[in-house]
Amino acid sequence: MSAIPRAFVEKTAELSEEVTRPFPASRKIYVTGSRPDLRVPMREIMLTPTRSSSGLEENPPITVYDTSGPYTDPTARIDLLAGLPDLRGAWIAERGDTEPLSEPSSAFGRARQRDPRLAHLRFEHLRTPCRAKPGRNVTQMHYARRGIITPEMEFVAIRESQRLDLLRADPRYTALLRQHAGQGFGANLPETITPELVRAEVARGRAIIPANINHPELEPMIIGRNFRVKINTNIGNSAVTSSIEEEVEKMVWSARWGGDTLMDLSTGKNIHETREWILRNAPVPIGTVPIYQALEKVEGKPEELTWEIVRDTLIEQAEQGVDYFTIHAGVLLRYIPLTADRLTGIVSRGGAILAKWCLAHHRENFLYTHFDEICEIMKAYDVAFSLGDGLRPGSLADANDAAQFAELETLGELTKVAWEHDVQVMIEGPGHVPLQMIEENMTKELEDCFEAPFYTLGPLVTDIAPAYDHITSGIGAANIGWYGTAMLCYVTPKEHLGLPGKEDVRDGIITYKIAAHAADLAKGLPGAQVRDNAMSKARFEFRWEDQFNLALDPERARDFHDQTMPHESHKVAHFCSMCGPHFCSMKITQDVRDGARAKTRDDAQIAIEQGLREKADEFRKEGAEIYHPV
Amino acid sequence: MSAIPRAFVEKTAELSEEVTRPFPASRKIYVTGSRPDLRVPMREIMLTPTRSSSGLEENPPITVYDTSGPYTDPTARIDLLAGLPDLRGAWIAERGDTEPLSEPSSAFGRARQRDPRLAHLRFEHLRTPCRAKPGRNVTQMHYARRGIITPEMEFVAIRESQRLDLLRADPRYTALLRQHAGQGFGANLPETITPELVRAEVARGRAIIPANINHPELEPMIIGRNFRVKINTNIGNSAVTSSIEEEVEKMVWSARWGGDTLMDLSTGKNIHETREWILRNAPVPIGTVPIYQALEKVEGKPEELTWEIVRDTLIEQAEQGVDYFTIHAGVLLRYIPLTADRLTGIVSRGGAILAKWCLAHHRENFLYTHFDEICEIMKAYDVAFSLGDGLRPGSLADANDAAQFAELETLGELTKVAWEHDVQVMIEGPGHVPLQMIEENMTKELEDCFEAPFYTLGPLVTDIAPAYDHITSGIGAANIGWYGTAMLCYVTPKEHLGLPGKEDVRDGIITYKIAAHAADLAKGLPGAQVRDNAMSKARFEFRWEDQFNLALDPERARDFHDQTMPHESHKVAHFCSMCGPHFCSMKITQDVRDGARAKTRDDAQIAIEQGLREKADEFRKEGAEIYHPV
Repeated sequence: MSAIPRAFVEKTAELSEEVTRPFPASRKIYVTGSRPDLRVPMREIMLTPTRSSSGLEENPPITVYDTSGPYTDPTARIDLLAGLPDLRGAWIAERGDTEPLSEPSSAFGRARQRDPRLAHLRFEHLRTPCRAKPGRNVTQMHYARRGIITPEMEFVAIRESQRLDLLRADPRYTALLRQHAGQGFGANLPETITPELVRAEVARGRAIIPANINHPELEPMIIGRNFRVKINTNIGNSAVTSSIEEEVEKMVWSARWGGDTLMDLSTGKNIHETREWILRNAPVPIGTVPIYQALEKVEGKPEELTWEIVRDTLIEQAEQGVDYFTIHAGVLLRYIPLTADRLTGIVSRGGAILAKWCLAHHRENFLYTHFDEICEIMKAYDVAFSLGDGLRPGSLADANDAAQFAELETLGELTKVAWEHDVQVMIEGPGHVPLQMIEENMTKELEDCFEAPFYTLGPLVTDIAPAYDHITSGIGAANIGWYGTAMLCYVTPKEHLGLPGKEDVRDGIITYKIAAHAADLAKGLPGAQVRDNAMSKARFEFRWEDQFNLALDPERARDFHDQTMPHESHKVAHFCSMCGPHFCSMKITQDVRDGARAKTRDDAQIAIEQGLREKADEFRKEGAEIYHPV
Repeated sequence: MSAIPRAFVEKTAELSEEVTRPFPASRKIYVTGSRPDLRVPMREIMLTPTRSSSGLEENPPITVYDTSGPYTDPTARIDLLAGLPDLRGAWIAERGDTEPLSEPSSAFGRARQRDPRLAHLRFEHLRTPCRAKPGRNVTQMHYARRGIITPEMEFVAIRESQRLDLLRADPRYTALLRQHAGQGFGANLPETITPELVRAEVARGRAIIPANINHPELEPMIIGRNFRVKINTNIGNSAVTSSIEEEVEKMVWSARWGGDTLMDLSTGKNIHETREWILRNAPVPIGTVPIYQALEKVEGKPEELTWEIVRDTLIEQAEQGVDYFTIHAGVLLRYIPLTADRLTGIVSRGGAILAKWCLAHHRENFLYTHFDEICEIMKAYDVAFSLGDGLRPGSLADANDAAQFAELETLGELTKVAWEHDVQVMIEGPGHVPLQMIEENMTKELEDCFEAPFYTLGPLVTDIAPAYDHITSGIGAANIGWYGTAMLCYVTPKEHLGLPGKEDVRDGIITYKIAAHAADLAKGLPGAQVRDNAMSKARFEFRWEDQFNLALDPERARDFHDQTMPHESHKVAHFCSMCGPHFCSMKITQDVRDGARAKTRDDAQIAIEQGLREKADEFRKEGAEIYHPV
């Protein structure tokens, strides 16, 4: 403790209240699986009853997918200095295929650990890193292909199901389960998600469970187009701004609002120590672009990068617990000239680094030539590949061009190599693509990369809206998610302009939760519409509190409502600010419906056809009083 | 002047600076047509030159569609008390088919004009209302069908063209005109927009030019799927909040950010006077829902509405200059029971009013039974129909249901009736529709309504994101725009929660400009990508000022950039805050490109294939200095 400077302890030992306060009317529940230590967290939103003429009718609680980790559990003891509990430690140990290391096996990792000048930044309770025993392969894909259902797979199956079987058996949910058929683009969404289905999808390479053995704190999740669409967020300090404290708080903030995974894209100082703090406190899988850190080690000069430096970096990060690596192994020397006539050349940072290296040495990309060795590292820790699209288009003009698609084919070739090692793979995608050209990206990815999960940034569907690029890209993201992309990398309002602050992160995440949810609905994910239906019912019945609580962002929904109608009495008002108290279309509809339901539906039909005039008279008599006080 | 209370004069005689200040680096230009009084406003954005090793290269200005009216013209004299100049007065008078009225021909209009208690609210320089001479028809459709190209049609043709022919002839624009082919859904976008094409589309009913003879201040615009996609904004006071001053300022604000048309949905007090102020100062077409005001006249009791009251309201508003009326004539008695089992019943205010009236009287909707008489009014002033979708779905659960589609068929029937009168028609559409069900809406609309322009609210693709419903609906809007919707009705972040303030209006508009532009690009509208390309080029060349100035919202783009990099020197920095000064992917790409372009493309190809090692050595020597000071 004494090694940690006071300022840091004070700031992060207590996260700010806004990142940890429980969501309103919500409680954390845990669904237990086949073993007592397999407890899958979910959030349950309590609803108020419907007030009707016949009295109170209960509205059952709604369960929602919860990425926020223990931070929103009031019973959890949060201590950033100690890190999160070791959720998966026993599962990993039981498999008997890993061994602890006496010290980091990367030279850089050892040097950082031994450097007394870093004591004030170092995470105190460093875990002993683990590695696969010699000759063993510890990837989820390896187990899946051998027919083993791991606790991680079962966890994921329960998590994806969101108690749908319970809901289906409970008559209170019958109306809420109404949902339109999806329109598929080849996805095959199962009615019921079993651990065996998860295993089969992972074995087939159509889904991945990023879960490094050195990140036992994470709550397992799955990325694949036959499951719910996920979103990734990016944080990271840079040479210009940011600090460890801010990054840890942003990670918790990201998980709070719904980030399923998080990439630490730090490029500034103390990357190693920042990453340790993030990993030890992260309930979500963490990804990195190791070449960024490798570049720091050669003082920002791409041409001085070597395979040895990158290799040491991969091991350093794998032993800290990074769950997936973006590896730009598809930027081949012969593809670089294909970018020369582009409007915006190479905009991927990793792509540009490797292009520069390739040109400077006139040699093939060393990540490509050493790909088998990288796979050997990945499978010793179960780090998943996120094969980077270093030649992604940075403008509409460059979308779907020869450079982009040439690289995609190479990513497919590398996918096959990784799968020979039983290493999990997802494929990164663009970028900037106009709406009508998005589907081609998905189609080609599925063909070229054998259905490995696609993970795309946006895409942005126009170039002209800086400060609103979360929206520009959210449009593209919803579409590509519908077509089959498994995970959407968020974009914040600061894209192209600056580094996102906390509110930008929130805006970006909620936008992407919308896009992902729209895609789930469009694909017909079973049960996806329950929350929408509950919201619509609350709307129709003027249950304002429930509307706020069911919202993706309950706090902002309430705040916006209160800007126009601040009084507590308005929370139970049978009207809204749009129409005012004297007239409201929803209120009238309720009258219409009450009328139509006075008799059964068939009777009402007859009544309308034969003698509605009588009913009309009644209605007129009652109608004098539109606004019934509750 | 003395009749206007000081508080009002002080507030609105001078609009606030933020609603009128010219856009940065922009100038208002006017393209003159076949007559000197036909001057089409556009905005030209000046760009800075590119600094390259060979010196400065000019970047030509970019012309953008400008809805802001005279307010952004520093040479225009703005006087809200006098209203805007009478742009179309001569055109209308020349046709010789209208006559001035000595006083309003609606009883309500006369009463308001004569009421001394309203003097303090009344617009001072009331225009004399006009009407078609007996037996004459003054609609743009009527002229179009008789082969007449009106000045309005020519204005629109020039406006839609945006000087594209000039751009095509100018070699400076060659690279910027690069654009991907659109993917059509039956739209037939012409390479060149001529006045004759505009006439033909209006005659065919596939496009409308909303332009009431009593709103001569407006700058004509066209709504149709073979032209650029438009957006509508809504403002309006309600019984709960808002005032005349705020509404006028909001109208100017809406036009500033890109609202093509504006609906005044006021439901509070002094609707008549508010509307007059808005119309006299509005450069964009104004729409209303006349039944809202009619309802005020019967103290909010739908069952007391009569055809006579509505008829008087239609004439009252037509003589003020309203350009299009939402008329919910498709809410038929027999469709109402179809809504009884909905999750959210009838959510359209107009739909609910008429449903209540129909049920209370057990008679057919009087807007339907009097539809021919409404057409007679419309054609005497050239008010266009916006046939309202009173039974639109208010939740995903109710999307594309029997009630919605039954009404749509009736709207088609009414379209034919209106067209028999040569009255212009557009069709309103939903609402809340999941992504995979949007296309069906467009397909059915085109079939059922004979390709009359579709005008949709969103649609929202999920129900669970109150406070972010501009985004939820922007996703749907981009898609339905791509499929063929001609105008998108915006949604603000306050949707479902409260009344939008100015910042909400801005957020809603920019979101919808993004959606409309994404749709234009997806359809392949010629020239649509020029601004995107100019932005991308500016990005690639680190021309920060140009990036701000080309943005849909230059002010926010600059503000967001400055939050991270506040210094003026950063505006010319060859890096951004994402990567910092030591490394930047765009900078590296420039180096790559400079290298590749040292020789011609073909030479470079040969060089790469045959002897790139030499080139690599050169590159390495130069590479030591990544960051060249400008």
